[in-house]
Amino acid sequence: MYKAPVEEIAFTLKQVAGMAQALEEGRFGDLSEDLTDAILEEAGRFAANEIAPLAANGDRQGAKLVDGKVQLPDGWADLYRRWAEGGWNGLVAEERYGGQGLPHLLNVAALEMWNSGSMGFALGPVLTMGASEALTAHGSEALKEKFLHRMVSGEWMASMNLTEPHAGSDLGVMKTRAERQNDSTYRIFGQKIYITWGEHDATDNIIHLVLARLPDAPAGTRGISLFLVPKFLVNDDGSLGARNDLFCHSLEHKLGIHGSPTCTMIFGDGRFGDDPGAIGYVIGEENKGLACMFTMMNNARLAVGMQGVAIAEAATQLATAYARERTQGKAPGWTGAGMSPIIEHPDVARTLLTMKALTQGARAICYSCAHAIDMSHHSEGDEARHWQARAAFLTPIAKSFATDIGVDVASMGIQVHGGMGFIEETGAARLLRDARIAPIYEGTNGIQAIDLVVRKLPLAEGAHVRGFLSELKALAVAVDASNRPGFGETATRLLAAIRDLEDATEYLLARLGEGAQVDALAGATPYQRLFGLTLTGAYLAKGALAQGEDDKRVALCRFVAENLLAESSGLKQAVVGGGASLAAARTVLEA
Amino acid sequence: MYKAPVEEIAFTLKQVAGMAQALEEGRFGDLSEDLTDAILEEAGRFAANEIAPLAANGDRQGAKLVDGKVQLPDGWADLYRRWAEGGWNGLVAEERYGGQGLPHLLNVAALEMWNSGSMGFALGPVLTMGASEALTAHGSEALKEKFLHRMVSGEWMASMNLTEPHAGSDLGVMKTRAERQNDSTYRIFGQKIYITWGEHDATDNIIHLVLARLPDAPAGTRGISLFLVPKFLVNDDGSLGARNDLFCHSLEHKLGIHGSPTCTMIFGDGRFGDDPGAIGYVIGEENKGLACMFTMMNNARLAVGMQGVAIAEAATQLATAYARERTQGKAPGWTGAGMSPIIEHPDVARTLLTMKALTQGARAICYSCAHAIDMSHHSEGDEARHWQARAAFLTPIAKSFATDIGVDVASMGIQVHGGMGFIEETGAARLLRDARIAPIYEGTNGIQAIDLVVRKLPLAEGAHVRGFLSELKALAVAVDASNRPGFGETATRLLAAIRDLEDATEYLLARLGEGAQVDALAGATPYQRLFGLTLTGAYLAKGALAQGEDDKRVALCRFVAENLLAESSGLKQAVVGGGASLAAARTVLEA
Repeated sequence: MYKAPVEEIAFTLKQVAGMAQALEEGRFGDLSEDLTDAILEEAGRFAANEIAPLAANGDRQGAKLVDGKVQLPDGWADLYRRWAEGGWNGLVAEERYGGQGLPHLLNVAALEMWNSGSMGFALGPVLTMGASEALTAHGSEALKEKFLHRMVSGEWMASMNLTEPHAGSDLGVMKTRAERQNDSTYRIFGQKIYITWGEHDATDNIIHLVLARLPDAPAGTRGISLFLVPKFLVNDDGSLGARNDLFCHSLEHKLGIHGSPTCTMIFGDGRFGDDPGAIGYVIGEENKGLACMFTMMNNARLAVGMQGVAIAEAATQLATAYARERTQGKAPGWTGAGMSPIIEHPDVARTLLTMKALTQGARAICYSCAHAIDMSHHSEGDEARHWQARAAFLTPIAKSFATDIGVDVASMGIQVHGGMGFIEETGAARLLRDARIAPIYEGTNGIQAIDLVVRKLPLAEGAHVRGFLSELKALAVAVDASNRPGFGETATRLLAAIRDLEDATEYLLARLGEGAQVDALAGATPYQRLFGLTLTGAYLAKGALAQGEDDKRVALCRFVAENLLAESSGLKQAVVGGGASLAAARTVLEA
Repeated sequence: MYKAPVEEIAFTLKQVAGMAQALEEGRFGDLSEDLTDAILEEAGRFAANEIAPLAANGDRQGAKLVDGKVQLPDGWADLYRRWAEGGWNGLVAEERYGGQGLPHLLNVAALEMWNSGSMGFALGPVLTMGASEALTAHGSEALKEKFLHRMVSGEWMASMNLTEPHAGSDLGVMKTRAERQNDSTYRIFGQKIYITWGEHDATDNIIHLVLARLPDAPAGTRGISLFLVPKFLVNDDGSLGARNDLFCHSLEHKLGIHGSPTCTMIFGDGRFGDDPGAIGYVIGEENKGLACMFTMMNNARLAVGMQGVAIAEAATQLATAYARERTQGKAPGWTGAGMSPIIEHPDVARTLLTMKALTQGARAICYSCAHAIDMSHHSEGDEARHWQARAAFLTPIAKSFATDIGVDVASMGIQVHGGMGFIEETGAARLLRDARIAPIYEGTNGIQAIDLVVRKLPLAEGAHVRGFLSELKALAVAVDASNRPGFGETATRLLAAIRDLEDATEYLLARLGEGAQVDALAGATPYQRLFGLTLTGAYLAKGALAQGEDDKRVALCRFVAENLLAESSGLKQAVVGGGASLAAARTVLEA
């Protein structure tokens, strides 16, 4: 059963991501290390004691659509209410709306643990947090007054309605339409698919944020508006009014996260109310809906990245515990009686170390991203811009690397279990099934790679990434200067990886500068992986340097440097030379 | 829907694996290219038209245990009987028992197609083929007379009963016991788990091959005997007699291959018959059971490798078809109206090319292994020994590389589908679920790596592998000499990969020579992967050279060389230096 790794999380958050220094500098007001620790401890307790025990049954039962109503798995609605009563939904929300105004990093760390408990369950609140954030940033005071408090408290959950059957990554071709009414409201008509927690029985009302197009809107993404469309209209006294004209048409039958209802939502087909059309309120300005979505999209991407970390952590714990108990054969050097625990076999140990290292690396990347977001909010001028750029840059890497390794580590976890891993009751298979959506939603990892290369890399004409690489080199130099033999070849290997990353970066910047976007795009995914791997090595080194007396951190860092970082030269080659071979091989894909 | 790639299969089998030359040399009697083609065509037709249409429902329904009887999914029992009536079960079996005595390579190619149609379905016959092979090689004439004809015809299916809860990879600790009776039969008592197709409704009788231990047997693997234990005893006139004392106690609830019943079998608890004990007949000599199993184990491993190829092929077809139809955004250089098909986006194209290349590479490795088996049977003296060594050497690589890429390619296929990939109805998710067992059963891929490094690498003191590497180098030289610009950097990159493989090989041989088995074991998995990847490059080059006019083969080969082979230096590092860092990091795994 999952144990919240609170100590490891606190270490990564403070020493690797940089929160210890920020707390010392008083960046977060009177937030102390003690309070931070207490929050992590309590979030971990809820994850391990309350969420995790309901995960397996939630997967088995799944969410069900019965007589037009969606039922969460047994106990989940109550679990959600207990979670909301704990105040967890408002951790980062502004205090004037009932939130606690705490750093994003704390929320991200808590999200990791809740997702380790059950990804299908923890996914629901993420949507509410995102919607609250968008409403806070762009909604009118009247809208906030009516809806935001109860979204922040968690009394009402929210959903995000973006995707349509023909409009996935490309939102510009969306068809859902909005019509202006005389009373400054709008009527919404259309169909949305893949709507996570679009309907359920956990809260009395559900606040849908819906992207739609006005009749006179410009074509493409500049003609999209964002609307708040509640399931039940809300009277001026705050009581629930009429049922709005929207409903859940069907649930998807998915590979994983079975307990999380994935809905097809129909707006405005006349099922409810006298006149067809779901009543909505515009958030921000008309036709500026995509900008409103972008406000929350970065944080949502990071939240999905945390799902990757969460699954990787849970899978590593499960496999390690199994490998300690299961005996089979005799490992070389085994002197105990009978068969040795399989953890003693070098191949199993290699797998478990790889799982652990990737988990820690992905965690450090995601936490560093969250810390950059916090710092951008708690600093000014150039410093704020620096942290904004860092957060913007790290977001696609955090989302893609963490979710990719989430799948890989979950798959390795199955392998460690042998035949038991393929049996659902073991729980390892569920982790893989759940993990598999994370590289897809909130922008596929291919989209993240494009974002990284085409939008983030050219920030400040590449100056930001170059500065970042210098920081990483300083870490390699510090490893070298530490003279600790336990680091083995770490300094050399880490420096080699950073140089490969540097070469790949300069190549991509040059190609973009020459307008050869197609070559840059061809190398985007290997570049993203190269960045994530190198950061894994660098951040593990940072942690090992920060905790001088801990030889385990040094040993794991060395394992990464001498095994996983070796991939860097191959990835660089795929970036630098891959475009030409890819272009030449296009004929292979012709029908 | 799956289309059998008969042309590609025939090309790989003849030009890459080497069957064309063998046919020319008359190695397989009067077998002609025309007959070969006709068999492949017909096997492909059955896979695409008969098996594939029943795959999705077979997955949804799964096998069910009802009132002690196992029901296959709707239509599967009938599908099996039609398949057996086609004579497919006896393709390689000896003619005197009703088989056709054809090359293993043809059977392997057919297996690929059937598994692409439905892995859960095609798995069943593999067990019968394996059991027939063991019985042919080791059974008494009386046993063969009574059972083998009807196993070869497919009238009766068979199962292999090896695993027990505490005895997975390590069969030496098995507890199932056999007691000698006065009439030269035995009584079997015990429990076996993970018994594939251990019980079902496709055939009137099921022939269980069971490993068990006699009371006076030596400890460990030298005290295991193999028994034939039929579900129904068979009278001397061939009619079915009494029900034997064995039954299926329960079915596993698995991640994938839902239609394939995975049974816990109970032998000899007294449920059937007057005296407890399932009646069995020894196959071969007492206490030599493991040797009998090894006869078929290599072929079974290759058959599992084919499942990896099969899934990869099906996933590649599904994803490519989707990427041609699905439109989203505008790819660079896209001049068509509206959105471009996603196959035009460089990142999607890279993924699809990787899927295709890995599939072709794994296929070539598996077919080359099958051809080596055939050649070892159709040659003599040193030549036979050469091919035996080649088959022995290639088997663990074929099993592990093909099943690893089966999982990877299936996962990539989901990714290409975006959100649709996570929806079960699309079919991409099922391929991943099915694929995930293949790296585990018939010896986990970690066990394969140990077999490769500890048993196969030292064959003829390394002379065999060195000779093999020379053959590969000759291919790189031939690419260079071809002077075809389409090959790009192929010759250089392929040679570099072969040299990395050579370095890794010499390192492992040296460590083994020094008795440092633990270091060799630490590098076993990266070595296995390095071998598979390098062979992928080499065999794709062989194909491209063989079909001079086909620029597509050249382009795909170049794509592999300039993108995938770049991993070789990293893998070599992990082999050569990984042992020390792994040993140092053991403390990380302590509780």
